[in-house]
Amino acid sequence: MANSFDQQKALSLIRQAIHHDGQFAPLHEPRFSGRENDYLKDCIDTGWVSSVGSYVDRFEKDMATYCDVPYAIAVMNGTAALHVCLLLAGVKPGDEILIPTLTFIATANAVHYCGATPHFCDSDTSSLGINAEKLETHLNDIAEIRGDTCYNRQTGNPIRVLMPMHCFGHPSDLDALLDVANRWHIALVEDAAESLGSLYKGKPTGQHGLLSAVSFNGNKIITTGGGGIILTRDEGLAKRAKHLTTTAKQPHPYEFYHDEVGFNYRMPNLNAALGVAQLEQLDGFLAAKKHLADAYHEAFRGFGGGYIFGDADYAQSNNWLIALILDTSDLKTRNRFLEMSNAAGVMTRPVWKLMHHLKVYADCPAMDLSKAEDLEGRIINLPSSVKHGIQHDT
Amino acid sequence: MANSFDQQKALSLIRQAIHHDGQFAPLHEPRFSGRENDYLKDCIDTGWVSSVGSYVDRFEKDMATYCDVPYAIAVMNGTAALHVCLLLAGVKPGDEILIPTLTFIATANAVHYCGATPHFCDSDTSSLGINAEKLETHLNDIAEIRGDTCYNRQTGNPIRVLMPMHCFGHPSDLDALLDVANRWHIALVEDAAESLGSLYKGKPTGQHGLLSAVSFNGNKIITTGGGGIILTRDEGLAKRAKHLTTTAKQPHPYEFYHDEVGFNYRMPNLNAALGVAQLEQLDGFLAAKKHLADAYHEAFRGFGGGYIFGDADYAQSNNWLIALILDTSDLKTRNRFLEMSNAAGVMTRPVWKLMHHLKVYADCPAMDLSKAEDLEGRIINLPSSVKHGIQHDT
Repeated sequence: MANSFDQQKALSLIRQAIHHDGQFAPLHEPRFSGRENDYLKDCIDTGWVSSVGSYVDRFEKDMATYCDVPYAIAVMNGTAALHVCLLLAGVKPGDEILIPTLTFIATANAVHYCGATPHFCDSDTSSLGINAEKLETHLNDIAEIRGDTCYNRQTGNPIRVLMPMHCFGHPSDLDALLDVANRWHIALVEDAAESLGSLYKGKPTGQHGLLSAVSFNGNKIITTGGGGIILTRDEGLAKRAKHLTTTAKQPHPYEFYHDEVGFNYRMPNLNAALGVAQLEQLDGFLAAKKHLADAYHEAFRGFGGGYIFGDADYAQSNNWLIALILDTSDLKTRNRFLEMSNAAGVMTRPVWKLMHHLKVYADCPAMDLSKAEDLEGRIINLPSSVKHGIQHDT
Repeated sequence: MANSFDQQKALSLIRQAIHHDGQFAPLHEPRFSGRENDYLKDCIDTGWVSSVGSYVDRFEKDMATYCDVPYAIAVMNGTAALHVCLLLAGVKPGDEILIPTLTFIATANAVHYCGATPHFCDSDTSSLGINAEKLETHLNDIAEIRGDTCYNRQTGNPIRVLMPMHCFGHPSDLDALLDVANRWHIALVEDAAESLGSLYKGKPTGQHGLLSAVSFNGNKIITTGGGGIILTRDEGLAKRAKHLTTTAKQPHPYEFYHDEVGFNYRMPNLNAALGVAQLEQLDGFLAAKKHLADAYHEAFRGFGGGYIFGDADYAQSNNWLIALILDTSDLKTRNRFLEMSNAAGVMTRPVWKLMHHLKVYADCPAMDLSKAEDLEGRIINLPSSVKHGIQHDT
């Protein structure tokens, strides 16, 4: 049975976990303790700051190695990465793309940019990602395979891609989702925007889908200012990704021949330089954040009214954003705590408004979304910066 | 009568103008001789590298002041700026947008991203921009005004926007184009990607249209690595530009409510820091490039076979890219010279392949494009870096 939620007690436990010194505790701030300044200065001194340069190549190589995939293509942000992943997965105007309703709007917008429609999926409370079992049931209800393609019988549209999102860094149940996707002839693209460094059954997220997208926005575990990357194991898709993100210009010593409508999505060398320096520190960041997550778990052990979200047995999260899950779903309680804690200098935030509750996506196809709706009233993200995990050591 | 083109003589005159020392002479390389390193280090030291930060605000303010417009909204590149300018000018899927065929592909792609169709215009040989007189004649032939909107009678589609591009920094004849646009109820958006610092009748380009887009790509007169900016005199459009480029999220202390499909187009603070340092040096860059342009004019005075493109009487170019115009349009002659000069370590390039010659835009509506086709075989861009203008002083 659910306990009532003691706000003051919860705030005090958060302060204990982060060793709160009374200064404003941000939700997630970046940490620059490596060679950032050296590499940026190198860009300026050599004059290579823009869309061609050695740091772009190096960042792509380092990221591919880190994520254990053969190909990585750096772009200007996670949204651009998602957009191109979907195009390369064959998404056409009119298609439907299975995405969680519990996600940041970039997931849905990337679908929209392709002229496709989001088809919303419910959450799995053990991963916060898409619930594979419920998806299978839903597809049995509404979908059919014709030829090699899955169709929504109700709308008549192809269901082209399943795009799970690894929420707050917690891996979705990829094997179960791949199983559904394969059975229904649907491609799987990973929205790994939040999960760099997370492992699914011991392997990095971002290598399981046909393509994957990672974000390096300022609030992510490592940052390039703004940036993203496309990961893939497919050489042909990697080449197409590079081509499409660099205005689709054919190689030629001097002619400007663009053979399709491409995008100006390339990551500048300046931002890649920051990424190389940040990636060098990622293992340390992961250790600090694990330390912080453990401290939260320890602090909230036995707390009545809510718990710190932990890994499923198949998952090892990067602990990007720590989440407190209230026992009882109640937007009023949630909002009161958000207001109280932020006023007290401890930054907290709710999960994103569910996509199907946004006016622009309210009319999209969807399965029953009751678990996500329940979670919306229960999730509170807590201060999760690397510095809080490091301070904990001292 | 046209003279034959003496390749060796032309190369020798270019070398004379740039005081060629035998080292590879790039087409346009950036110059970092100001506070670039200080400002980048400041971003790292303060932790502000991403989509919020004081350099973004400062860069927007400095750019607005420089271009003499009240509002400037920084974005991640010139393509993104063009895309949002068109959306804010009211472009809808199916619309036709009047753009030059002689332009970089970003102009046409931005139209395509809106679901609209480029409608290609011919060149004015005195500006290299859209020929206003020929446009007026063309509209008389194919267009009509119904209600408040101009329609293409042949396709039935609205002609919504006229978007001239200030080619190589040379201002198009804005008054003549505005005159046509106003008469036909068409909005004018300036593609000022290349013309930061250029003046039209004494006033900066970018302030004459409803909205304007500037680029800070690595090859532009100043660079932010990758970047662009939207300029406007309209407060409402400025607010909409900021909203649309920052995922259309409504202001709220903690809720994520996005009220339309927006874009993740914001310029990161790191890139804006570079922009602030670069803009502080722009007047010096302009002086050096004027010096270089004068040196080219001087060197090629009396040369038979071609001439250095100069300003129309209403224009003062930023001399972004210096252009040699061959007397005779001949792709073979042009290409031979491109190959010979590049092999000799002097980087030259042709104008972009005309948009209506690209397969993806071959079927778009167009007027007679004979002047642009003539220019394609005549234009050769020459080394135009600031350093060549500065070296000239020493």
